[in-house]
Amino acid sequence: MKNREVRLKSYPDGLPSRECFEIVDADLPALQPGQMLVRNIWMSVDPYMRGRMTPNRQSYVPPFELGKVLDGGSIGQVMESHGGPFAAGDMITGMLGGWRQYNVTNGLGMTKIDMSLTVPLAAYLGVLGMPGMTAWYGFQRIGKPKQGETVFVSAAAGAVGSLVCQIAKLKGCRIVGSAGSPRKCNWLKNTLGIDAAIDYLEAGDGLLNALKEAAPKGVDIYFENVGGLHLEAALDAMNPNGRIIACGMISQYNNPDPVGVRNLFNIIGKRILMQGFIVSDSFAEIPAFIAEMGAWVAAGKIKWEDTVYEGLEKSPDAFIGLFSGENLGKALVRIGPDKV
Amino acid sequence: MKNREVRLKSYPDGLPSRECFEIVDADLPALQPGQMLVRNIWMSVDPYMRGRMTPNRQSYVPPFELGKVLDGGSIGQVMESHGGPFAAGDMITGMLGGWRQYNVTNGLGMTKIDMSLTVPLAAYLGVLGMPGMTAWYGFQRIGKPKQGETVFVSAAAGAVGSLVCQIAKLKGCRIVGSAGSPRKCNWLKNTLGIDAAIDYLEAGDGLLNALKEAAPKGVDIYFENVGGLHLEAALDAMNPNGRIIACGMISQYNNPDPVGVRNLFNIIGKRILMQGFIVSDSFAEIPAFIAEMGAWVAAGKIKWEDTVYEGLEKSPDAFIGLFSGENLGKALVRIGPDKV
Repeated sequence: MKNREVRLKSYPDGLPSRECFEIVDADLPALQPGQMLVRNIWMSVDPYMRGRMTPNRQSYVPPFELGKVLDGGSIGQVMESHGGPFAAGDMITGMLGGWRQYNVTNGLGMTKIDMSLTVPLAAYLGVLGMPGMTAWYGFQRIGKPKQGETVFVSAAAGAVGSLVCQIAKLKGCRIVGSAGSPRKCNWLKNTLGIDAAIDYLEAGDGLLNALKEAAPKGVDIYFENVGGLHLEAALDAMNPNGRIIACGMISQYNNPDPVGVRNLFNIIGKRILMQGFIVSDSFAEIPAFIAEMGAWVAAGKIKWEDTVYEGLEKSPDAFIGLFSGENLGKALVRIGPDKV
Repeated sequence: MKNREVRLKSYPDGLPSRECFEIVDADLPALQPGQMLVRNIWMSVDPYMRGRMTPNRQSYVPPFELGKVLDGGSIGQVMESHGGPFAAGDMITGMLGGWRQYNVTNGLGMTKIDMSLTVPLAAYLGVLGMPGMTAWYGFQRIGKPKQGETVFVSAAAGAVGSLVCQIAKLKGCRIVGSAGSPRKCNWLKNTLGIDAAIDYLEAGDGLLNALKEAAPKGVDIYFENVGGLHLEAALDAMNPNGRIIACGMISQYNNPDPVGVRNLFNIIGKRILMQGFIVSDSFAEIPAFIAEMGAWVAAGKIKWEDTVYEGLEKSPDAFIGLFSGENLGKALVRIGPDKV
């Protein structure tokens, strides 16, 4: 039995390209005691993976190894269990099983999906998965929002940003989001109902002016997904005692010559808190997250979009697409059908 | 009766110069009910004042006005009280009475000095004053030091930095300090007893390497007084869950073209906390500060140096000297004798 998988062929120099990946039909090993065979259905591509494609980089996760299968978030169904923690037929999800057709695992880091909730399976890689937890945890635990405060969200039409916008709205905040196209800005305003959307490509050098216009009372909380000039604009527009939730800096990931941020003195003058976080440090809060977010989802209070790439073979394109600005909401790859 | 005072004549363009100031013998107004006449003895010059010499700048304190007397920390003796809160003969200190020979005040923001402590009067503008409180509050409340952690302090031979080094030592930390001359580095190592001192002018582009060598286990807490390349080096050398106490960025205050910090992604990857603060927000903690710092001072556990400029007329030079790197410890201006 063969297992189609995606390996890292070369480390990207700047923007990743199709040539950095290779798709290989590997041998599927026999199950060892405690292992399970999982048929993958969905996999996730996420911006943080770009950091793992840089060798010798000091980061919270080790770099991907050349010639080895990549990993990432996935949803699959247990086909066979050789004494593993889940039973044949169970749907399970975790952060390491992606980029492959079948996943042989002992279940470490995987959780069983509660199929009684009436949400699409793929939601467990989005609104009820890692991006949802990232938005929920970062915005609330670090942002400590108060009703009536103004929140600025960059990459607001992305998987995390679009959920931050909606959680902020549920908490009674005024929301300004930035995104890179009129289509995204319209979606943010008309479907998600945020208060103001800035097309940062249109704004160009006028990003700060656009932000000040969109947030006339100043910004109290900045949910940082982009870095560089977005961070500069946010720092200039922020109010005293503002909070910066440092989640990502996607504008810098493929930039061999990173943009320097020149107005960090604002952090002192305005007593700003800037806190970086990695969602996987806070998995103990998953039950609290699922309880609150699950209730919002069940009540129809959270909307989301998926950008779906069909077939494992499309996963490099899905990943590269994260940096082109084309995706709306969560980028996903469908590896196989929900049911066989 | 005339009152010699220092006024701001023009806003500095880059590094402040003597021509930005003028010394004027103004009329001393008659005391109104509730006011006191204070003979100033000491005044403080501090880097934060540079921020107030920039017009139209959004900051925590309004800019100084052209043609008006400057203000800042001072110590003086009450000569006459017209129903004010302190009595003739009392020594009082506060953050607004400086840059003038006599101070007419209703006592708002001033406190009476406890003369029973056997410390030099000038200490109330240094170790037991605003710089001491800044070091004590910032390092402990934001830094949350743990025994054995490595602390990096920039401008370590300055008024605040030299106290941070010693508080960190009392808390059982390993201390690396940076300063801009061999004399300062020797003082830090031999007199204050820090573990490693980096002459950043000698290190030049090798600052990060020098820091990594001086802090082989990485930096857990960075007390930020300098900004720019110091912050970049600290971010690269920091450990996961590190804390940056953002107190000042003196390298940027006179720089019309601020240096951009290019490696802020470390804040995310290492889950770093960066918190700006202004000591005047935390004056409620002054009693706790005086209790702990006063006990250390009384026990001879804290050392300090003053760089004293003689005469109010020298106050512009004292202020300009803050940016030349010549001062060791606290820069002070002696306006008059302790006793008349």
